[in-house]
Amino acid sequence: MRSGSGSGRRPPRRSRVADNVVSVLSAWNDGPAKSAILDFVARVTEQGGPDFVPTDERIAVFDHDGTLWCEQPLQIQFFFAQDRLKELALEYPPLAERQPFKAFMEDDFRTIADYGKQDMFEVMLETHSGLSIEAFQRIVAAWLETARHRELDRPYLACVYQPQLELLDHLRANGFKTFIVSGGGIDFVRVFTQQAYGVPPEQVIASSLKVRCEIHDGRVQLIKESEIHLFNDRDVKAHQIARHIGRRPILAFGNSDGDLAMLRYVATGEGARLALLLHHDDGIREFAYDREFRLSALAEALDRAEEYGITLVGMKDDWKTIFSSTA
Amino acid sequence: MRSGSGSGRRPPRRSRVADNVVSVLSAWNDGPAKSAILDFVARVTEQGGPDFVPTDERIAVFDHDGTLWCEQPLQIQFFFAQDRLKELALEYPPLAERQPFKAFMEDDFRTIADYGKQDMFEVMLETHSGLSIEAFQRIVAAWLETARHRELDRPYLACVYQPQLELLDHLRANGFKTFIVSGGGIDFVRVFTQQAYGVPPEQVIASSLKVRCEIHDGRVQLIKESEIHLFNDRDVKAHQIARHIGRRPILAFGNSDGDLAMLRYVATGEGARLALLLHHDDGIREFAYDREFRLSALAEALDRAEEYGITLVGMKDDWKTIFSSTA
Repeated sequence: MRSGSGSGRRPPRRSRVADNVVSVLSAWNDGPAKSAILDFVARVTEQGGPDFVPTDERIAVFDHDGTLWCEQPLQIQFFFAQDRLKELALEYPPLAERQPFKAFMEDDFRTIADYGKQDMFEVMLETHSGLSIEAFQRIVAAWLETARHRELDRPYLACVYQPQLELLDHLRANGFKTFIVSGGGIDFVRVFTQQAYGVPPEQVIASSLKVRCEIHDGRVQLIKESEIHLFNDRDVKAHQIARHIGRRPILAFGNSDGDLAMLRYVATGEGARLALLLHHDDGIREFAYDREFRLSALAEALDRAEEYGITLVGMKDDWKTIFSSTA
Repeated sequence: MRSGSGSGRRPPRRSRVADNVVSVLSAWNDGPAKSAILDFVARVTEQGGPDFVPTDERIAVFDHDGTLWCEQPLQIQFFFAQDRLKELALEYPPLAERQPFKAFMEDDFRTIADYGKQDMFEVMLETHSGLSIEAFQRIVAAWLETARHRELDRPYLACVYQPQLELLDHLRANGFKTFIVSGGGIDFVRVFTQQAYGVPPEQVIASSLKVRCEIHDGRVQLIKESEIHLFNDRDVKAHQIARHIGRRPILAFGNSDGDLAMLRYVATGEGARLALLLHHDDGIREFAYDREFRLSALAEALDRAEEYGITLVGMKDDWKTIFSSTA
């Protein structure tokens, strides 16, 4: 029934490509951001073209909080910390009596909003240490099954952005290897990146605590200590990309000044590069914020995007759909 | 011309598997080590079997120096350091006048053999810092093209072990993802792991120096500092496997006490596990050594292998061929 002069075993090449382009990035509105992405991917995959990049070197890195899923009113990991703190306070009530823990115990988000990194680290260290990585991850997995985002009224894994899922798929369909480069805790994030984004644990780079080897019941366990090994933010993101991946990526996507070093590291490599910055400017469908979000502000990257060769993506205009319906 | 009752499009299934088993690990002699490997791989890949492991979780980790390639009379990276030291001393002669550099300048391996880690670190820091990762790797690549192992009289990339190349291939053919977990310097090792072992840079975990971001000619460069970020040895190997891979591997292969924590971490996981320890006991075809090799001794792991559930591989009896002829 098929027209065309081929052997009949495969559809004509041109129409297949066209089908593919029509169906990808359907949650993105047509506009400069979507065009920049489609053009970039077409250029680096064009065999024999001037910007062709071999498959091995097609590395894409994505920030996590605020880039792949919602980070308002606080990064989701803090809500996990809050629930875990309430559990721990049942066993040790004095924990609830002093700051910064008290504010979390009492849902006092006005006080929390004024906390700097040191207070927030203290909450994370208290709630993320003293047990093995494997035991910790079982707790996170159980929490994700029932916890819900209060303002968006949906499970946390349904707070991931549909346009980004499509972009990750489009990149992988074109031979890219996709990595997540998060300021969040590595043992937390890795629990769900395969399920939520199709990114396996070994392609997740993130913040980590010190660990120690202990033998329990004859098994070596890695115990999480209450001391930071590495906070994966700003320049450290570029350092860690080099240490973990060992190649300069050709595409990066972030949403805050914490991603700027990574975006510039990627944007200033040789050959074709694409650095993308998501601006949360849709207060109706999501949250509108940038420089006033104390825990992860967006200011310099926004002000100097053009100078740094960074392509802006506006959630309001560039995204047709915000949240995934399939998570 | 093919016999058999199928459509003629593919060979009968059973004979294909048999062919495969006959041809794999041909540089290994039949014996308990080879059997342990073949049995383990068969068990974890047997769909519906009691020891079946899904593809995603088939992670194998290999130490590098002394496990995948020769490490005598010193780890090969020290010969690179030596040649680089001679280059640097041309620009700055006083470097050659004091220890530990003097011994390297003068090929004084008797003195070098007595050095502990601190002296050796000093040589590594001096010769591996003060330039970008990318510039450093170009120097390593150029060095590898001409440098030769003096005693074995062959290029360094021909000092890799043929039985291990076959094992890596066999694992990957059975859905394993293979990682290298080396005490060596990460920017050094990554230059050749794809070519030598089929292991891409992002699947290499190793020691690293601190780095800093600097902008040169408008490009972000990561500059290697003369300070250790992380020495990937002993317990740190287990820590780094957890941080980098995020899953407990099911197979590990090492050759020294520096690998013991990694071997035990892997061996004591739940389900089917295989931990292998290479013993350099072939003084004719390679080098015979264990507890007296000060830089990377093998003592506890050898003495307690059985107690720890570690399978010994003797180079003399278990390996038919030692070195790769194709590198």
